[in-house]
Amino acid sequence: KERAYLNSHRTPNRTGEHKYWRLRQEGSGDTVTPSEDTPRQGAGYHSESKAKEYKHVCKRACQRAVDRLKAGALAVDAVTAALVELEDSPFTNAGMGSNLNLSGEIECDASIMDGKSLRYGAVGAVSGINNPVLVANRLLSEAQKGKLSAGRIPPCFLVGRGAHDWAVNHGIPPCPSEKMATKFSLSAYKRNKHKMELAEKVDTGFNHHSKKRRQASETENGSGLLDTVGAIVVDREGNVAAAVSSGGLAMKHPGRVGQAAHHGCGCWAENTSTLNPYSTAVSTSGCGEHLIRTMLARECSSAMQCEDAHQALLEAMQNKFISSPFLASEDCVLGGVIVLRCCRCSDAQPSPDIQAILVEFLWSHTTESMCVGYMSAQDGKAKTHISRLPPGAVAGQSLAIEGGVCRLVNTPTTVD
Amino acid sequence: KERAYLNSHRTPNRTGEHKYWRLRQEGSGDTVTPSEDTPRQGAGYHSESKAKEYKHVCKRACQRAVDRLKAGALAVDAVTAALVELEDSPFTNAGMGSNLNLSGEIECDASIMDGKSLRYGAVGAVSGINNPVLVANRLLSEAQKGKLSAGRIPPCFLVGRGAHDWAVNHGIPPCPSEKMATKFSLSAYKRNKHKMELAEKVDTGFNHHSKKRRQASETENGSGLLDTVGAIVVDREGNVAAAVSSGGLAMKHPGRVGQAAHHGCGCWAENTSTLNPYSTAVSTSGCGEHLIRTMLARECSSAMQCEDAHQALLEAMQNKFISSPFLASEDCVLGGVIVLRCCRCSDAQPSPDIQAILVEFLWSHTTESMCVGYMSAQDGKAKTHISRLPPGAVAGQSLAIEGGVCRLVNTPTTVD
Repeated sequence: KERAYLNSHRTPNRTGEHKYWRLRQEGSGDTVTPSEDTPRQGAGYHSESKAKEYKHVCKRACQRAVDRLKAGALAVDAVTAALVELEDSPFTNAGMGSNLNLSGEIECDASIMDGKSLRYGAVGAVSGINNPVLVANRLLSEAQKGKLSAGRIPPCFLVGRGAHDWAVNHGIPPCPSEKMATKFSLSAYKRNKHKMELAEKVDTGFNHHSKKRRQASETENGSGLLDTVGAIVVDREGNVAAAVSSGGLAMKHPGRVGQAAHHGCGCWAENTSTLNPYSTAVSTSGCGEHLIRTMLARECSSAMQCEDAHQALLEAMQNKFISSPFLASEDCVLGGVIVLRCCRCSDAQPSPDIQAILVEFLWSHTTESMCVGYMSAQDGKAKTHISRLPPGAVAGQSLAIEGGVCRLVNTPTTVD
Repeated sequence: KERAYLNSHRTPNRTGEHKYWRLRQEGSGDTVTPSEDTPRQGAGYHSESKAKEYKHVCKRACQRAVDRLKAGALAVDAVTAALVELEDSPFTNAGMGSNLNLSGEIECDASIMDGKSLRYGAVGAVSGINNPVLVANRLLSEAQKGKLSAGRIPPCFLVGRGAHDWAVNHGIPPCPSEKMATKFSLSAYKRNKHKMELAEKVDTGFNHHSKKRRQASETENGSGLLDTVGAIVVDREGNVAAAVSSGGLAMKHPGRVGQAAHHGCGCWAENTSTLNPYSTAVSTSGCGEHLIRTMLARECSSAMQCEDAHQALLEAMQNKFISSPFLASEDCVLGGVIVLRCCRCSDAQPSPDIQAILVEFLWSHTTESMCVGYMSAQDGKAKTHISRLPPGAVAGQSLAIEGGVCRLVNTPTTVD
């Protein structure tokens, strides 16, 4: 559930106000009554012990992206740099340290979207690549070059062995799968394997109660289950970009692809246009199947075109996720989003040479907790925060929502 | 571009009117000026020679689905039956006879959506399965059974080797890849390979002109390129379902996944609800990358909630596809859709025991041609039609749109 929120403008003479909304946490109220049996994920004790690590890696990811922005990179490259840092951490469920699948292998999903070109690149179920986001980014940039030989249309989404081979042919270094597993992911795999075997033995004894098997207790590695990483960025030109990367659910079936590789579900970015008053960027985390069926990233992005960002996100999370008709059969809907939107300030600009941009950033989740980091190019270092559901709120049925707004002032670069 | 449109109610005492809209074809007018260089796909001469076969397979697919509906099957199973027939034809680019990829292998995509449960199942880049839609359908029905052992969430989207193995473990028979290739697909592969080699040799000679390589002439097998198959169905209870299956672009990179496996892009189905006055089902065909970036199936479905179905589809194809901001850099946008929507008739019902349903079906395409078939359970046989752009219209920039409306009367079944 690590999240890096990033926004950056590199001019030194920033004069914007910096105001954060107070924490607001709201229960959904209209779904299933909380009970002891409700599955909980992102279990508290675990996140507590890992909180320090989570915050550290978020800070490093913010710093990495801001460094790139200061060097003149566009949003899409800065967001990639943040993701590489998050993937490289053995504590996140992405790249290095990803969850193992049913066969004990690592298969990763990642995608990226560029709000300027509205292009998207994605890889699914790819093994032996420790930075899947680099492949997604490369797919996006290769497609921008136009058609391949003999008029072939370049791919935007590659999976499995084909994705691996394409990446290596495009200079992205492979990584032996055994190097991507960590002590933690291997021991979690062993424990889960054992639990599954026990659950299935019980099932064989009572196989006329197949429903019972299907309602068996959750896998234990709660907090390891959904620690997808993502980032959203706005650059000094006002371009937005979003990216997401995930090792997927622990003990998933080989070949399973989650929201992180799915257009509209894992991330979304759209620059302002004649139709959209705001530029928006969104990245999601949580149960892939829930996020795919609700297309949560795109839904949140659309919702953010309303005036009140906080209210818009609250309603989107309630109506398009927790109470979504697409998840009517689910009593526990697990996910989190980070959202960014920005527009030119409508009030008088400080001077004709200086442009002010209003940037709002928000996050919301139905999981027990979510770690968020954010930074602008004027900040000395990133801020991080572990957002939690209020005591007594039920994960999967309630949500937490928080956010901040700031006004950034930017001297425009000279355009050649 | 084969399309089976199906709607069925099995009561014998049907009394509805049956009126077809006149053919309307409209140029988009607002995109790039037609020129000799504009790539054309679905070349006329080829479709002409195949037209008879296309019509035959559409008829058989309609018949197969209607047979299932008459036997009491729900829409989701009837649509699967239609797709199996379409996949089994060696003339379509799906299942048997699919396009070969760059390595000379067949990798298929397929997905299905059930308007009642709003669930979706999909497979991507799967080899050695001659009916990929059966895997998609099975993923959907397995997920409906609830969680797996140890609380694991069942997958909705599987790719590659993992998808193949899951299918075989669930009783879907494998098929040796060499049996899925046809004389036609093998000779097209050889010709395309040769063309690519020529194009790349030219490139090696002038590799400082890499742009030139990228604008090289199209692969020749125009009409074979986009012959994805799909179907949409409404059953006697008014449930809708949609499915799509594709071998993908000829000479695609191994592991490339197109719109046929992509939620919201290849097919969409939504029963009527408090939010939606109409039940809608959509299936798409065309260039996967264009259909993914525009999420055309879902966009058309949403559009169909407006009153005038024809106008709504026309505007959706114009604004959300040909002139979509997501395809701003493309001068040739290739795709086709079949669309179904239905609602209870608002006028007086013939009797309290008989319910009348208004069913509208439409198709639209920017490709040179698209083959469509349709049938209701009262029809003795399916109707088929090869829709073509008007003479002089430019594929990828203009569209054809047609459709029909009928009022079906159905004695409701006794509800237990």
